[in-house]
Amino acid sequence: MSKYKVFLLRHGEGAWNKENRFCSWVDQKLSEDGIKEAQECGRLLKEQGYKFDMVFTSLLSRSIHTAWLVLEALGQEWVPVVKSWRLNERHYGALIGLNRAEMALNHGEEQVKQWRRSYDITPPPIDRSHPFYLEIYNDRRYSNCDVSKDNLPRSESLKQVLERLLPYWDSIVVPEIRSGRTVLISGHGNSCRALLKHLEGISDADIVNVTLPTGTPILLELDENLQCVRPRQLLGDQAKIQAAIKMVEDQGKAKRPA
Amino acid sequence: MSKYKVFLLRHGEGAWNKENRFCSWVDQKLSEDGIKEAQECGRLLKEQGYKFDMVFTSLLSRSIHTAWLVLEALGQEWVPVVKSWRLNERHYGALIGLNRAEMALNHGEEQVKQWRRSYDITPPPIDRSHPFYLEIYNDRRYSNCDVSKDNLPRSESLKQVLERLLPYWDSIVVPEIRSGRTVLISGHGNSCRALLKHLEGISDADIVNVTLPTGTPILLELDENLQCVRPRQLLGDQAKIQAAIKMVEDQGKAKRPA
Repeated sequence: MSKYKVFLLRHGEGAWNKENRFCSWVDQKLSEDGIKEAQECGRLLKEQGYKFDMVFTSLLSRSIHTAWLVLEALGQEWVPVVKSWRLNERHYGALIGLNRAEMALNHGEEQVKQWRRSYDITPPPIDRSHPFYLEIYNDRRYSNCDVSKDNLPRSESLKQVLERLLPYWDSIVVPEIRSGRTVLISGHGNSCRALLKHLEGISDADIVNVTLPTGTPILLELDENLQCVRPRQLLGDQAKIQAAIKMVEDQGKAKRPA
Repeated sequence: MSKYKVFLLRHGEGAWNKENRFCSWVDQKLSEDGIKEAQECGRLLKEQGYKFDMVFTSLLSRSIHTAWLVLEALGQEWVPVVKSWRLNERHYGALIGLNRAEMALNHGEEQVKQWRRSYDITPPPIDRSHPFYLEIYNDRRYSNCDVSKDNLPRSESLKQVLERLLPYWDSIVVPEIRSGRTVLISGHGNSCRALLKHLEGISDADIVNVTLPTGTPILLELDENLQCVRPRQLLGDQAKIQAAIKMVEDQGKAKRPA
């Protein structure tokens, strides 16, 4: 029986989405379109009368900004917003900053799909020679995390995302849900997918084929054991949502420069 | 000796400022000018290289939105933001929604100045017949405060603002400051004045003449007892700041309709 409602939200388009590059832990802002997607999402949630008691975000601006825009559109700016690196996008290691389409040309579409979608394959780690290494690891935002900078990931499979996310879910988010609060998680493609795998009990094999659209609130209904009891509901215009899913799927395909 | 730096910020213009009405606990949004003031303030703080570890706001959107805009301009969106009714604007009781200039015409400039600026004169309380009573007291944002709705103020003098703010300052804000964190308080005209009175040791008589400009970061340097050791510094273009102070002061004066 459905006891709790939880909302997941994958942020809208970031500046690098347009260029089809792996953004991951680089703190790219939302694009103009990404801002509109978040506002639209807030208007939709308002229209449907949803009221939040707590919002969780990653430490990356695009997830935080999305949460702010949603709360603003809802007129619920006062709702507490809690931020943690444990909701960050998957760490893509050495692939950070690369263009997905170029990678497909160099490594083959199948390898890129494996890196993007497989459950337990970890891309090569980022090292000091990587152009974004210092920008990430010298950033003050990671100074007061619940792990030391040395213990932050250098690359992650989806499995590893779930492993760092789950303790946070269990110890910080679940108690809020159990106390009756309606929670919105403003996350990223892969932090949302990892959580969804856990809550819906999706197999390691099947998670590869799960694509989440951007800027679309996902309503989950959970039982008293915090497991999904109904299929996830993607809120909004269903044709638009299918188009958004297709767009994300197409990002992994090879594109020859014109 | 200066040991800690703390920043106060009075939010920029709200929608009702233009109409010169007592806004107080009514959740008016920032005006376009108010948004620009907050962004400008963020740019200034960035230019001067300030880095925040924690931001405190009221439960009113204009103070929250100001904090968000400042953090965005700073590129410090990830900084924790903590919200409490104890930083709300002074509760103006029955005067809420009234036009300051009209009040000056009806009650005399001196009475309005007393209500606005005196330390311990409480305006008449708001009651159920007031057009904004339900909007305020039925608002979900006050459901999970550290006092019951019945014990929330119905009107406040500046003294009463300090009385509800001080326990929050002592128990929530001060421990952060003592642990070495740089704190920004995004408050309101009178929550900032009340705190300033406490930190600078301003007398009940002298606080009447203290006017804080909007959208101007105020840097306070505190000793180990959390008392100011230097005059407050209003950051930014000093001529503009003086003009902003004068504008606030003029709001209390009678204006005959044209």
